[in-house]
Parts: sequence; C-alpha cells; structure tokens
Amino acid sequence: MYPQTINNLIECFKKFPGIGEKTAERLALSCLNMEDEMIELFVKSLKDSKTKIKTCEKCGNLSEDTLCDICKDKSRDSSILCVVEESKNIVLFEKIGTFNGRYHVLGGLISPLDGINPEDINISSLIKRIKAENIKEVILAIKPTVEGETTALYIRKLLEGTNVIISKIAHGIPMGADIDYIDSLTLEIALSERSQIS
Amino acid sequence: MYPQTINNLIECFKKFPGIGEKTAERLALSCLNMEDEMIELFVKSLKDSKTKIKTCEKCGNLSEDTLCDICKDKSRDSSILCVVEESKNIVLFEKIGTFNGRYHVLGGLISPLDGINPEDINISSLIKRIKAENIKEVILAIKPTVEGETTALYIRKLLEGTNVIISKIAHGIPMGADIDYIDSLTLEIALSERSQIS
Repeated sequence: MYPQTINNLIECFKKFPGIGEKTAERLALSCLNMEDEMIELFVKSLKDSKTKIKTCEKCGNLSEDTLCDICKDKSRDSSILCVVEESKNIVLFEKIGTFNGRYHVLGGLISPLDGINPEDINISSLIKRIKAENIKEVILAIKPTVEGETTALYIRKLLEGTNVIISKIAHGIPMGADIDYIDSLTLEIALSERSQIS
Repeated sequence: MYPQTINNLIECFKKFPGIGEKTAERLALSCLNMEDEMIELFVKSLKDSKTKIKTCEKCGNLSEDTLCDICKDKSRDSSILCVVEESKNIVLFEKIGTFNGRYHVLGGLISPLDGINPEDINISSLIKRIKAENIKEVILAIKPTVEGETTALYIRKLLEGTNVIISKIAHGIPMGADIDYIDSLTLEIALSERSQIS
C-alpha cells in the first residue's frame, strides 16, 4: 500500500537482525524526514562497507588498510596477544584502555554441529603468528560456551610443548550484580575459581 | 576504534528513532555480511526515498506520482473522506480492507505548545476539498489526545453550517482486552459512549 520505494526500504530494513515488520516500517518512514546530507552519508557508508572494509592481514580485525590501526601501532606490546572471537570484541577491550598488547580475531568458534571446524577459523594463522613473532603470553578472551571451551582447548593442545603462557579471562559474578539473580553455572565457576584474599 | 566507514555507518543508524549506540553498532556490522545485491537495493531505495517520494497533490498521502494510488482509483467512493494524521495510518485502514472511501492526510495535529497551528497542517486543503468535491461524510480518524480533540473540534467548527456529516471513529475497550487492565479514561469513554443492544 506504500509506494514501491518505501516497500523496498522496508524490505531492506527487515533483513537486519532484530528488525521486524513494524520497526522496519518506522525506520523506512523516518528516512523521508532525514536531511539530504544524512542520506548521502548513509548511502556512501553503505557502499564503502562493501568496497573499503577488509580484514587486517595480520590479526583479522576490520580495517580499511592491509594492516589495522592496532597492528600498525608500534607503541603496543607485541609479546602479548589477546585472542577474541569477533572484531567487535576488540572495541570492547579498547574501550577499557588498559590492555596494551595486540589482538587476534578468530572469526568464529569451533562448532562441528554448525559445520565450523578448526580450519574454518583463523587458528592456523594464530599458531603461525605465535611461533613467528616473539609472543610470550596468549590471553584467550573467548566466551565460556561449549564452542568457546572447545576452541580454547584446541588452541591449548596446539601450543603444548611451547614456552608460551596461555591464560583466559576470569569468569565469575559480574561487578555490582546481586548474587540472588546469578545463574547456578556462573555461581559454580565463581566458587571453584575463588581467590585467597588474606 | 572501528575503521572510519563503520563509524560513519554507526552514526547514520543512530540518527533513526529508537536506535541507540549498541543497536547501531550491531546493524552497521551486519551490513558487512550482507549480499552485494541487498546493499545495492538498500542504497537505491535510500536515494529514491529522497527523489521519488512526493505527497499526493489531492490527499497528502505518500506517492511516487502527482496523485496517489487511492486518489487515482476510480472505483472508490469519493463521497466519503477519512481524515488521518499521517500517511502510515492509511496503510492500517487499507489492511482492514472494508473502507472504500478516500483519505485526507493532515500531516500533524494542532498543538500550539509545539508551535503547530491550523495553518501548518493540511486543514485548508481539506475544507476546500470537502466543498469542491461532493463529499457527504467526513470520518475523523484522529487519536483521542488533547491535540487530536483540538484538531477535530477545529475541523467541526469550520464545517458548521454545511450539510456534511462529520463522524469520528469509536473509542472504547479494545477487542479481546481484559477490562481489569484498561486505564480509567478509556473506561470512562467506553461507559459514556455505550450503545443500546436490546
């Protein structure tokens, strides 16, 4: 019942995750009230996202160049590597601002049921990189699901016999959370990974 | 921390109503996984939304032509006019499929506090249209807020002394709703606008 252009816009918005019929309609209609410059920037960014965005040759992070800003930054400690599942995880760590090492993006987690095997994600490049560059510590910052644990275990196996320290980020009760509302699995991990304080 | 293109995309998505930082980030990143054809259609639709979409000269509905599909449709009853606030309301009425008259889009409601006066919305064109075309009934399908009631009252005043029947859509308990959870204002209206059934 809308003109074809608006129907097309609605269909496009519906392709995005978490956007349903109603939201897509609202977003499409709000395009009509946007300034021309905004739409132009939007159009340009969408096109650029297909042409300019590559993955960093070294770490797999999103980048417009062959190497990403983090890999290019010579002030960073290249002996410590934080292994993450996706590029967007890097952004989260960078927001904290306390980590000064480098990253490696796996681009997925091992999940045989979904047809994702070790060779489908950036594990071989990680191992190569650890051996080639003088990496002292590898921090596994992977989510604690079955897939995450499998991937972590696999990486540990591959690095057996090397001198690289392998660590993983801590799991436990989130800061400020009420213990009453924490799931039992998290509570179990928090208990088993307790640390002595005096 | 993302490449510039992705930051631009995030900023664009954030301009949409109801889209915050996190959602904008999710939407921008999902553009990277979309097929080229999808992005091309999106880009084209966005451009078209600025160039092709006009408002119908007669009723104010969104249209790609001078007249919208409803105004062009000669099979529709042109003696009955349904007055709505926005174009998207038309889509809702058209989905029911029982109304065969025509529409008039006000493009807003009178709201002096927000600086919207009668001359800022399509009221004069409505009155002209009612007088020029042989309109027998005007249905006010405007929401029952202060602004809506003001607008309805204003239109009624302007049509005083003419033979046009003015009606408004019914307000009351929504079908299937539990009376326990209905606000008292709706209940009051439902009570005062009760109809005799035997």
